[in-house]
Amino acid sequence: MKSIAEPVMATGRIQALTDGVYAIAMTILILNLHVPQVPHRGPDLINALWRLSTFFMDFVISFLLLAIFWVVHHLHFHHIKRADRKLLWINLLSLLFVVLIPFTTSVYGEYRELTVAAAFFEANILVLGLIKCAQWSYATSKHLLVDPDLDQAIIDENKRVGLVTPVVALIAIGVAFVAPDWSTSTFLLIPLVIRGVRRL
Amino acid sequence: MKSIAEPVMATGRIQALTDGVYAIAMTILILNLHVPQVPHRGPDLINALWRLSTFFMDFVISFLLLAIFWVVHHLHFHHIKRADRKLLWINLLSLLFVVLIPFTTSVYGEYRELTVAAAFFEANILVLGLIKCAQWSYATSKHLLVDPDLDQAIIDENKRVGLVTPVVALIAIGVAFVAPDWSTSTFLLIPLVIRGVRRL
Amino acid sequence: MKSIAEPVMATGRIQALTDGVYAIAMTILILNLHVPQVPHRGPDLINALWRLSTFFMDFVISFLLLAIFWVVHHLHFHHIKRADRKLLWINLLSLLFVVLIPFTTSVYGEYRELTVAAAFFEANILVLGLIKCAQWSYATSKHLLVDPDLDQAIIDENKRVGLVTPVVALIAIGVAFVAPDWSTSTFLLIPLVIRGVRRL
Amino acid sequence: MKSIAEPVMATGRIQALTDGVYAIAMTILILNLHVPQVPHRGPDLINALWRLSTFFMDFVISFLLLAIFWVVHHLHFHHIKRADRKLLWINLLSLLFVVLIPFTTSVYGEYRELTVAAAFFEANILVLGLIKCAQWSYATSKHLLVDPDLDQAIIDENKRVGLVTPVVALIAIGVAFVAPDWSTSTFLLIPLVIRGVRRL
Repeated sequence: MKSIAEPVMATGRIQALTDGVYAIAMTILILNLHVPQVPHRGPDLINALWRLSTFFMDFVISFLLLAIFWVVHHLHFHHIKRADRKLLWINLLSLLFVVLIPFTTSVYGEYRELTVAAAFFEANILVLGLIKCAQWSYATSKHLLVDPDLDQAIIDENKRVGLVTPVVALIAIGVAFVAPDWSTSTFLLIPLVIRGVRRL
Repeated sequence: MKSIAEPVMATGRIQALTDGVYAIAMTILILNLHVPQVPHRGPDLINALWRLSTFFMDFVISFLLLAIFWVVHHLHFHHIKRADRKLLWINLLSLLFVVLIPFTTSVYGEYRELTVAAAFFEANILVLGLIKCAQWSYATSKHLLVDPDLDQAIIDENKRVGLVTPVVALIAIGVAFVAPDWSTSTFLLIPLVIRGVRRL
Repeated sequence: MKSIAEPVMATGRIQALTDGVYAIAMTILILNLHVPQVPHRGPDLINALWRLSTFFMDFVISFLLLAIFWVVHHLHFHHIKRADRKLLWINLLSLLFVVLIPFTTSVYGEYRELTVAAAFFEANILVLGLIKCAQWSYATSKHLLVDPDLDQAIIDENKRVGLVTPVVALIAIGVAFVAPDWSTSTFLLIPLVIRGVRRL
Repeated sequence: MKSIAEPVMATGRIQALTDGVYAIAMTILILNLHVPQVPHRGPDLINALWRLSTFFMDFVISFLLLAIFWVVHHLHFHHIKRADRKLLWINLLSLLFVVLIPFTTSVYGEYRELTVAAAFFEANILVLGLIKCAQWSYATSKHLLVDPDLDQAIIDENKRVGLVTPVVALIAIGVAFVAPDWSTSTFLLIPLVIRGVRRL
């Protein structure tokens, strides 16, 4: 027996909450960068800022990953027209892993030479990527929450694009067993791979 | 004598402020997770991350509770079409207890073996749940702020669903007198109970 | 000579930025509450939480003041239909003093027995209140940014209501010279006074 | 071969994410102001608050710069009606440098007597200003993302206005070689210069 109160809702507020969580997660990444404490002299500060550059790269990579996920969300919800309770919860679950990114980024920042720290961060990205895939599959299966005339080719292309990040994350985890401190650079491949996938 | 300036307002901005506060509260929960400080070796970090798992569970439970309250808010404001000053203030009061959750979560994280710490967190959830019930009752009483033709069955079902969280919070407080460090797991019952209540 | 690029804009984004800043300022107030560090025993924690109660009151008062200012903003922009560059900047200036509130709250929390700390917080509220008055006066003068048929009685009532917070802040500053640690309680008068002013 | 899934999107969510990031960046600037720790006596606190005044000026200047960039964004998106993927990414890149501002502000706050610290902050502003120029040029070139009948004079004026901040940032970097601790005050010229540019 189906509940009487199962409204089909607009997606405005999911998008608003999602934009808010992404905006905050992107911004508090910066709290991982600490002002270096050096004796007050010019060359020391230049060196100290230079030594920050690995943390700065972590910040840029995490920011770009959040940006990629946000763009994907934006593209998905360009097509998703309605929300039901399951979509709400898949989306909320994805936000849980968005919120984790500043934490796993800072664990990696502290222990970048350890496979476990790198894999911990990369697993976070992997899971988030898989949830996004599941969300798109759920919303488009039998055109459940999208327009009935949405082109199947668009649905399929978005599925292929959605798989890029999880696959690259798996590769990054593989690299983490060899060179953990370089493994997150693997994510810089994503834009190139997506470009390739789009042209198929 | 009624004031001349008692406008009936749209609910857009209540929803925007509410989404903002929920998004931030959900995100700053992560600040309760601290990067463990260990000598730089792999097994140590794995153990340290493992010891973090109780904090991680706290994070997940508080995140899910916030998510549940947000979904309830979303479902309520799917039906609430207008706002008056009282609704604004009931909503703002609920946000005060939303903002408290990261704090009561971290008190519990520090003192999970103490009944007082567990009950402090659970009382926060209890009060927030009761305010949500009051908000729905106020908005729907005599169809004050909802559509005149909103089905009474939907109103009643939402009332029953709204009582689930406060009742489970009371049970959790009871459990806190016996096993404080497990008592918050009681909240994991909420989805099951809501599912049951919906089928009545 | 007037610039060619002086567009009259919609107010949606001012409201969005304002809602965001208020939501964050309300939420980071909680960062002023620190988990007490006590030996791990029940009575100690109860006492420690009890000693936090003054900080908790500060949190509640600052939260309520932000809520009052937000409600006032909401009521104002219920009537303000257009934005020009001056309105943008008055609004941004008000946000600067909104952002200061978590800081002046925590200065007061540390030094509540000092007149200077209490007056510092209360001056923050005073200035914010005055800016809100200026904003309403600017927007409604000659019906510049409101509907041409907006009732003058509504304009005047909002002016009177807008003066309540600055006047109470002045009284609080006066009280701060006698009893700084109680002076912020003066703000609890605001709802009563507003109610009175509305009935004039 | 162009991808099939290159939708032209509305700009609502870019604006929402941007408003969120600006709101948070503006608000966490306040975390750079720390409550001074002094022996509990009145004159000490007054002196300590007084010594905070340089940090307070940093806060005000960074807040105003963020406000200027936000107003520019608002004016641009008053005219930009559509979004493509490139615009999304230019905008996300600009947000990366928005998020950096609280960090470069606090580096400057700690080492204001060093040219490198001042230039670091000012370079942040310079790059952000240049990205904004690029965004406007991209969106308006051949009226790509604006209304086809948007006046060329408005496009050109916005280009001139957009160059003000980068040019002033370059001057500030020059001043930083002579008087780093005063160099950020150069930014206070921006409103005057913009006013002049508008009248051309």
